[in-house]
Amino acid sequence: MRALMLHEKNRMSIEEVEPVGSPGPGEVRIAMHTVGICASDVHYWTDGKIGPFVVEAPMILGHEGAGTVLEVGEGVTYLAPGDRVAMEPGVPDPTSRAVKEGNYNVDPGVQFWATPPVHGCLADEVLHSAAYTYKLPDSLSFAEGALIEPFAVGMYAATKAEISPGDVAAVVGAGTIGIMTALAARAGGASTVYISDVLPQKLALLDGLEGIVTVDATKEDLGQRVREATGGWGPQVVFEATGAAPAYKDLWSLPAPGGRIVLVGMPVDPVPFDIATAQSRGVSLETVFRYANVYQKAIDLAASDAVDLSRFVSETFAFDDSVGAFERFLEGRPTDVKIQIAL
Amino acid sequence: MRALMLHEKNRMSIEEVEPVGSPGPGEVRIAMHTVGICASDVHYWTDGKIGPFVVEAPMILGHEGAGTVLEVGEGVTYLAPGDRVAMEPGVPDPTSRAVKEGNYNVDPGVQFWATPPVHGCLADEVLHSAAYTYKLPDSLSFAEGALIEPFAVGMYAATKAEISPGDVAAVVGAGTIGIMTALAARAGGASTVYISDVLPQKLALLDGLEGIVTVDATKEDLGQRVREATGGWGPQVVFEATGAAPAYKDLWSLPAPGGRIVLVGMPVDPVPFDIATAQSRGVSLETVFRYANVYQKAIDLAASDAVDLSRFVSETFAFDDSVGAFERFLEGRPTDVKIQIAL
Amino acid sequence: MRALMLHEKNRMSIEEVEPVGSPGPGEVRIAMHTVGICASDVHYWTDGKIGPFVVEAPMILGHEGAGTVLEVGEGVTYLAPGDRVAMEPGVPDPTSRAVKEGNYNVDPGVQFWATPPVHGCLADEVLHSAAYTYKLPDSLSFAEGALIEPFAVGMYAATKAEISPGDVAAVVGAGTIGIMTALAARAGGASTVYISDVLPQKLALLDGLEGIVTVDATKEDLGQRVREATGGWGPQVVFEATGAAPAYKDLWSLPAPGGRIVLVGMPVDPVPFDIATAQSRGVSLETVFRYANVYQKAIDLAASDAVDLSRFVSETFAFDDSVGAFERFLEGRPTDVKIQIAL
Amino acid sequence: MRALMLHEKNRMSIEEVEPVGSPGPGEVRIAMHTVGICASDVHYWTDGKIGPFVVEAPMILGHEGAGTVLEVGEGVTYLAPGDRVAMEPGVPDPTSRAVKEGNYNVDPGVQFWATPPVHGCLADEVLHSAAYTYKLPDSLSFAEGALIEPFAVGMYAATKAEISPGDVAAVVGAGTIGIMTALAARAGGASTVYISDVLPQKLALLDGLEGIVTVDATKEDLGQRVREATGGWGPQVVFEATGAAPAYKDLWSLPAPGGRIVLVGMPVDPVPFDIATAQSRGVSLETVFRYANVYQKAIDLAASDAVDLSRFVSETFAFDDSVGAFERFLEGRPTDVKIQIAL
Repeated sequence: MRALMLHEKNRMSIEEVEPVGSPGPGEVRIAMHTVGICASDVHYWTDGKIGPFVVEAPMILGHEGAGTVLEVGEGVTYLAPGDRVAMEPGVPDPTSRAVKEGNYNVDPGVQFWATPPVHGCLADEVLHSAAYTYKLPDSLSFAEGALIEPFAVGMYAATKAEISPGDVAAVVGAGTIGIMTALAARAGGASTVYISDVLPQKLALLDGLEGIVTVDATKEDLGQRVREATGGWGPQVVFEATGAAPAYKDLWSLPAPGGRIVLVGMPVDPVPFDIATAQSRGVSLETVFRYANVYQKAIDLAASDAVDLSRFVSETFAFDDSVGAFERFLEGRPTDVKIQIAL
Repeated sequence: MRALMLHEKNRMSIEEVEPVGSPGPGEVRIAMHTVGICASDVHYWTDGKIGPFVVEAPMILGHEGAGTVLEVGEGVTYLAPGDRVAMEPGVPDPTSRAVKEGNYNVDPGVQFWATPPVHGCLADEVLHSAAYTYKLPDSLSFAEGALIEPFAVGMYAATKAEISPGDVAAVVGAGTIGIMTALAARAGGASTVYISDVLPQKLALLDGLEGIVTVDATKEDLGQRVREATGGWGPQVVFEATGAAPAYKDLWSLPAPGGRIVLVGMPVDPVPFDIATAQSRGVSLETVFRYANVYQKAIDLAASDAVDLSRFVSETFAFDDSVGAFERFLEGRPTDVKIQIAL
Repeated sequence: MRALMLHEKNRMSIEEVEPVGSPGPGEVRIAMHTVGICASDVHYWTDGKIGPFVVEAPMILGHEGAGTVLEVGEGVTYLAPGDRVAMEPGVPDPTSRAVKEGNYNVDPGVQFWATPPVHGCLADEVLHSAAYTYKLPDSLSFAEGALIEPFAVGMYAATKAEISPGDVAAVVGAGTIGIMTALAARAGGASTVYISDVLPQKLALLDGLEGIVTVDATKEDLGQRVREATGGWGPQVVFEATGAAPAYKDLWSLPAPGGRIVLVGMPVDPVPFDIATAQSRGVSLETVFRYANVYQKAIDLAASDAVDLSRFVSETFAFDDSVGAFERFLEGRPTDVKIQIAL
Repeated sequence: MRALMLHEKNRMSIEEVEPVGSPGPGEVRIAMHTVGICASDVHYWTDGKIGPFVVEAPMILGHEGAGTVLEVGEGVTYLAPGDRVAMEPGVPDPTSRAVKEGNYNVDPGVQFWATPPVHGCLADEVLHSAAYTYKLPDSLSFAEGALIEPFAVGMYAATKAEISPGDVAAVVGAGTIGIMTALAARAGGASTVYISDVLPQKLALLDGLEGIVTVDATKEDLGQRVREATGGWGPQVVFEATGAAPAYKDLWSLPAPGGRIVLVGMPVDPVPFDIATAQSRGVSLETVFRYANVYQKAIDLAASDAVDLSRFVSETFAFDDSVGAFERFLEGRPTDVKIQIAL
C-alpha cells in the first residue's frame, strides 16, 4: 500500500507502508480516490510544524478525502462495501464532555488526520470511524466529495452566523476558505453575499454566481459598498476569512447594529480588537475551528445544486506526482482554489 | 378617491370616499398600484367576520399592497415622492412592550389593514407609517411588491424555523402559504424542501424549482418519503401550512430527533396534540402570526433572484372589476395561487 | 449480591443475583447507596409495561441512584475508588447522530436503567459508563445525590425554557416534577415562579422558599394571578407539569406575548391544542424528554445552596423493605414528594 | 426648580432652571428622589467629554434616577401620579429599525440622559417617556430604584451570556459593574460566580453572598482556580468587567470549550485579541452597550430578594452638596461602590 509520507521538514515521498488491516468495531476500511491539498499539509511539509503541532515521527499527509468503502467492521449497518463516501477527518473521544454537548470539534481529545502524530489519508487505503464517514450521492463526484472538507469549514461558519433568511452578508477575503464561506452563506440563507479581495483574479472565480457580489478591495471599501446597498444599515453577518492582520482594522465597525462577526481566518498573532466600537453596535462574535455536525448538510446542499463545488478544482495530479501537486500549491497562483490528488 | 368598501356581509362595492389628506409626522401618502386578495379579505366579505373580528362599520378591504409614494410627512427622510414601495400592513403601538422586545407582530395594539375596524389599502391612495413602508428595487414589479406580504408569512415561518444551512425541510400543504413557506425555506438555507398536497395541480405549480421536491399525498406518505431520503433520520424542520385538522395526525412524529415544527396554518378549532410523541423525539414548536422584521429581507431575497414570486400571480383584475376578482378567488381553482387587483 | 427484581406484573422481590463482574473500558463498578422510587418503577410493577415498553423478562428496578465507586475500568481517569457519585441512568450509543448533535436523550439507541429490557440500579452493585457518572461534593448527601435524577428533569425543563434573568415563570402542577421544575426555574434565573396545584398539601411543601409563590388552583386562576402581578403581561415562561388532560385547556393563552411553554408532563393521550391562541401570542413550545447535559449543573446548583433538595425526601426505607417503599408510594399521600431506599 | 448644571469642564453648580412644563403625549413628569453618580457623570465634569461626546452647552448631569410621578400626559394609562418609579435613561426613536428588531440600545437615534447634548435627571423634576418609566414595588427603596440603572448593565450582560441553569461563571474585575454583573449572573442562573480583583477591599464587599466566590488576583489565577473547581473544564461564561488592557491577556483561554465571553468593560483603545486561542476552544463573544429589555426584570429580581442592591450604597449626599458627592467619587475609595444624591 502506497502513502505520501512526511518524514520531516522538506522530506516527503510516496512509499510503501504496511496495509491498514481489518476494520475494528464501528470502523470502515476505505479505498481512497481523491484527496485535496490544504495549506496545513503544505505547512507541515515546508515548516515541519504548525504552532504546537510538531512532526516528530513520519506522518502520512492529507485530510480532505473521498473514496469507496471496501470493508465494514462489527456493528456498522449504515455503510456497505462499494459505497462512495466522504470522510470527516477529525474523530473525537466519543465519551467526552465536548461530544455530549454537541461541540465535538473542540474536544481536546480529537484525533485529526495529518495533525501530528495522527496519520492522514493520502494513502491507498485508510481505516476510519463509520460515524464520521458519509455516503456520497451519485450526483457528486469524488472530486466534489473531497471538496466537502473545505466546504464544511464555510458551512460551519455559515451555521454559526445564524443567518436569518434574507440577511445581507459580507466576506472579507476570497481565498479558498473565503470562497467556501461565501457559497455556504448564500446557500445558507443570505440574500446577497458581498466578498472582497485585493486580487481581482480571485474575485473573477466567482463571476456569474447568483447572489454573490465581488468587491475589489484595492478600489472600493467593502463596508461603504454594503452600507450603500442597504440604506446605510450594513450587513447582518460579516465573515473574516483572511487571518491577515490588516483585515481586522475596519472589521469591528462593519456589521449592522445587532449584527455578528464570524472569525474564520486564523491569525498567527493577536490582532487589535476595538471593543468599544463593537459594543456601540451591539455586535456578537463567533469563532470557527474546523466544524461539527455539518458534513451531511454540506453534502446535501452540494447534491441539491444549491452550490456547485466542482468549478473550484483548479488542477488534479496523479498520486505518484503528489510532490508536484504540493509544488503547484506553493506557486500560489491567484487563480488556484483547490489542488487535488487522484489515487 | 375610489375604494373597495365592505359595508356588511356580502355587500361590497367600489365607491367614492373622502381623500386621505396629508401625511402626518412619520407618515407617507401612497398611490396604490397593485393589491393582492387574501383569504381573509374574502372571509370578511362572505362572513362579515373572522373569529372575534366583526365588520360593524364600512371597511375598505385589502392588505397586500404596493404603490408609489406621493408625499412624505415631517421627519421622513428615507422615502421620497416617486419611490416605488411595498407596505407592511400592520403598524404596532411604537412604545409597547412587544415592540421593545422585537415582537411587534404580537403587540395587542397593532393596527392591521382590513382587520375591523381598520381600513385596508384597496383604494386609490392610503396614508401609512414610513417605518413600515419599504422601497422596491427596480428589478421587482408592483405585482411582486404586492406578493411580498404573503411571502413575508413564509419568510417569518422560515426565520422562526432557525434553519441551519443544509437542513432538510418538509412542508405540509401547497396552498398559497405553503408555497410561500417552501420558497422561503429553500432560499433560507434548506438543502431540499419536500412539500406535499392532495391536489396534484398545486404541486405542478412548483415543477422545475431547484431544491423543491413535491409529494402527492394521495399516493405517498410525506414522512416516509423524507425518512427514506435521509437514511431514516427525517427532516430537521417541518412546516404545517394547511390548518386542516387531519394534517395534525401524523405531524408530531414527522421531525428528526431534536427537530422543529413550525405551525403556520391556523386551524379554527383545537387539534389533537400527541405530546408524548413530540417529547420522545425532543421536538420544539414555533407558532407563526403574521410576521415581524422580515419585510426588507423578503424584498432582498426576491430581488437577488433567490426566489421568483412573479410566477405565482394567477390573474390580475382591474380595480373596477374588484368584485370579479373576489368571485374568481371564491371559485377556488386548484391552479390559482394569487389573484391581484391593479389600480 | 442483592437486587430488587421485577419478574412480571405485581411480582417483585429482593433476591440474590450474579455479581456484576469487573468494569470494562470506560466503565466503573459502583456500590449503590441510595435509590429513589419513580412513578415509572411503580408502573412497571403494577402494570408490567409503560406504552411500548413491556417487561418480558425479569428486570431490576430503579434508576435514581447514588453510591460509591468501587473499581474503575481501563481509560477511566476522572473517577477513582472511594468517590461518591450520582449516575445519569441513560447511556446513549456514543457514535449516534443524536449524540454528535448534543441531544443524546433522544438517541433511539439509548440504554436507560429499568426501562425494559435494561436492568436498573436497585442492587448492591452496578456497572456504569464513567462518562455518565458524576462526583458528588462532600456537601451533598447520598439522598441528595439520588434526587439529582428527578431534579435533572426540572433542570432540563428550565434549560429548554431559555429563561432570561428576571423572567417571571409559572408552573402548572406541584407534583414531584412540578416541584423540581419550580426549583430549577427559580435557581435558573426566574425572579418569581408561580406554581399551582389543586392539593394545598402539595403547595405547603414549598412554603418559605424564596421566589416561589403558590397558587391554590381550587380558589384562584393561575393565569389571572400572574397577569395581575405583571401589569397584565403574563409569564414569559410556562411549565406544564401535570400531564393531566384538563390542565391543557387554559395553557395556550397563559404565556406573555412572545413567551414560551415547556411541556414537561407526559399525557397518555393526545390533548386539544388551541393553535390559533398560541399563534396570536407568538408562543413557542419546547418538549422535555428526560434530560441531556444537565447532571453536572444540577449537582453544582444543589451544592451551591441555590436549591435545597434534602427537604423533599419524604421517607427512606431499608433495601430489604423495598416492597414496603413501593407500597408507600402507591398510597399517594399528598405530602409525599420522594420515597427513597437506602442500601 | 433646581438642577446640577455642568457648564464646561470643571465648572458645575446647583442652580435654578426653567420648570420642565407639562408632559406631552406618552410622557410623565417626575419628582426626582434619588440619583446615583456614574463614572461618566464624573468624566464629563473633569474632562468635558467622553470620546466623541463633548459638552458644548450647559448640561444637567445624572442618569441613574428614581422618583415619584407627578403628572401623566395624554395616552398614559399604566402610570398615575404618586407612583414611585425608576427610569431607563435612554429613549430611542420608536420607529427605528433597531427598535423594531428589539435592540433599542444600539439605535443611533437614542436620546440618553446626561450624554451631550441631552440633559440628565439631577434636577427637582424631569419629563420622561412613560414607556421607559417603571413602577417600583413597595419593597424597593428609592435608593434601590436608582441602583437599577447600574444593575441593568449587569443584567444585560447576564442576559447576553445566555446562562444555562447551573453554569459556572467568572467575572474579571469587582468594580461597580463587575459587582452588578456577578449579582445578575448568580441570580440569572449560575451555580457559582468566581469574581477576581486586585483590591481585596472590593472583594470583601461580596463576603457572605451565596454562590459568589472571590479570588484575590494578586495571589491566585482566576482561570486556574475555576479549572480546579470544575475538573479542568473551566467556566461556561466569562464576563470581562474592567476595560483595563492587562485583563485581556489571559481572557481568551479562560472559558470552557464551547463557552462564551461577555465584554462588559469598555477599553479606550483596542486590545490584543488572540483569535486562534478563542477559536481552538470554540468561544463565542458578546458585547454589552447599556441595556435593552431588562429594566422590569431587574426590578423584579431585586424585589424577589434574589439580589440585595441596598448594601452597595456607600454614601448618600444631599442635593445641595452634589459637588461634594462628585468629589467623594473622585477619591476613589476602594470600599466605595455607589455614591448617591437624595433630592
